[in-house]
Amino acid sequence: MIRIVLIGSGNVASHLISAFAQQNLAKIIQVYTRNKEMSIDTIETVHDFSELKEADVYLIAVTDQAISDISNQIPFHGKLVVHTSGSVPLKALSTHNRRGVFYPLQTFSKNKSVTFKEIPICIEAENATDLDVLKTIAESISDHPYEISSEQRKALHVAAVFVCNFVNHLYRIGSDICNENNIPFKILEPLILETASKIATLSPEKAQTGPAKRKDTQTINAHLAFLTDKEQQDIYKLLTKSIIDHDQKL
Amino acid sequence: MIRIVLIGSGNVASHLISAFAQQNLAKIIQVYTRNKEMSIDTIETVHDFSELKEADVYLIAVTDQAISDISNQIPFHGKLVVHTSGSVPLKALSTHNRRGVFYPLQTFSKNKSVTFKEIPICIEAENATDLDVLKTIAESISDHPYEISSEQRKALHVAAVFVCNFVNHLYRIGSDICNENNIPFKILEPLILETASKIATLSPEKAQTGPAKRKDTQTINAHLAFLTDKEQQDIYKLLTKSIIDHDQKL
Repeated sequence: MIRIVLIGSGNVASHLISAFAQQNLAKIIQVYTRNKEMSIDTIETVHDFSELKEADVYLIAVTDQAISDISNQIPFHGKLVVHTSGSVPLKALSTHNRRGVFYPLQTFSKNKSVTFKEIPICIEAENATDLDVLKTIAESISDHPYEISSEQRKALHVAAVFVCNFVNHLYRIGSDICNENNIPFKILEPLILETASKIATLSPEKAQTGPAKRKDTQTINAHLAFLTDKEQQDIYKLLTKSIIDHDQKL
Repeated sequence: MIRIVLIGSGNVASHLISAFAQQNLAKIIQVYTRNKEMSIDTIETVHDFSELKEADVYLIAVTDQAISDISNQIPFHGKLVVHTSGSVPLKALSTHNRRGVFYPLQTFSKNKSVTFKEIPICIEAENATDLDVLKTIAESISDHPYEISSEQRKALHVAAVFVCNFVNHLYRIGSDICNENNIPFKILEPLILETASKIATLSPEKAQTGPAKRKDTQTINAHLAFLTDKEQQDIYKLLTKSIIDHDQKL
């Protein structure tokens, strides 16, 4: 059994605790958190780095900015220390220890459970043995481990911002437009789900529909006239232009 | 049984033919299509308006631009004639007949089947009797009929462009970034599906995550530096600004 010390108690840390609780190949033997009020059922919780136990892997699941500093505070040398961030390079970790990355590629919200088995876990290490350890841990909670370099992970994180954070913001605009016109936002749910599930069988290029795809300037102009919010207009214009430009490159 | 004549043979028309074939409350008794090569199994197909049969409802599923003209060519008076468009007002239909709208709110692609039962159908008519007929037809193929006015439908169509067409274009950008960095786009599928399914339980406002939400300027700048395509940069900047502005209004 691989023994893990988890550092952090935020969204990602909480979801990792639930995921690891469901199997026996790897076990979180201790959680470190700054938050002195916090304790976790059945797992020892500490608030001082001097109390950290010996373990096989130290998993740092904290904000990007704190990763480097925390990796320097781990009171061991030569251990495998990995972070869970999409945007921090492996090299940001202290050289006191063997370095790696264990990045679950998903959007985590408090109070919304996820099926961890389906989440891709991007792993990276400095040598083959450590990569094997991370692969074993990843496979203990997920069916989709991927070996991804720091450079690829950076690209992946940018792509994730487009397909998740920006997409959610477009849902927000859709929801605002519905609210302003006394339409239940729920009516758009099947469309949203179908648009997302389509890409499992059709490339986004083939799946594209709508006025911009058809270069239907009459509808485009009617939509722009309908929108009164300047920022919504700007987004409508820019994305419409981008869809048309993209098609012209084909 | 309600007898329907369907005019059109594109994406929406094809999906309607499949949907109506699965029940007995309403039946497509004839299909009109301009395309003389085209015939449909088990349904009479005609290519001339003079051959249109008497029916209870004429369902016009053609491009937005052709709706008005086609409604004028139907060789009957006082019949219920409805179109299936999200963006054309009821009043665009000829006054020779009773007018209505039957708009299935979904993205239809050739070669991708959909579960019609889950698709909201937005109906509109000029009197209560016609509205009842459209409601019966809608309920024969869908569990979600909604009474939506032309003005609301316009808003809904704009909202649909944001949450479907523009969202799909962001998937396309995500896919481009993956391809350029030798990452399988498949790795983003669980994230895309989770982002979409989240909104059934969390409002888009509450579901928002990512660098813009956290006002994490370090990551935002690193992403902008990573992007080399000017249009991708512009979209990243505008959507990031819009997320931040939106939060400041709360």
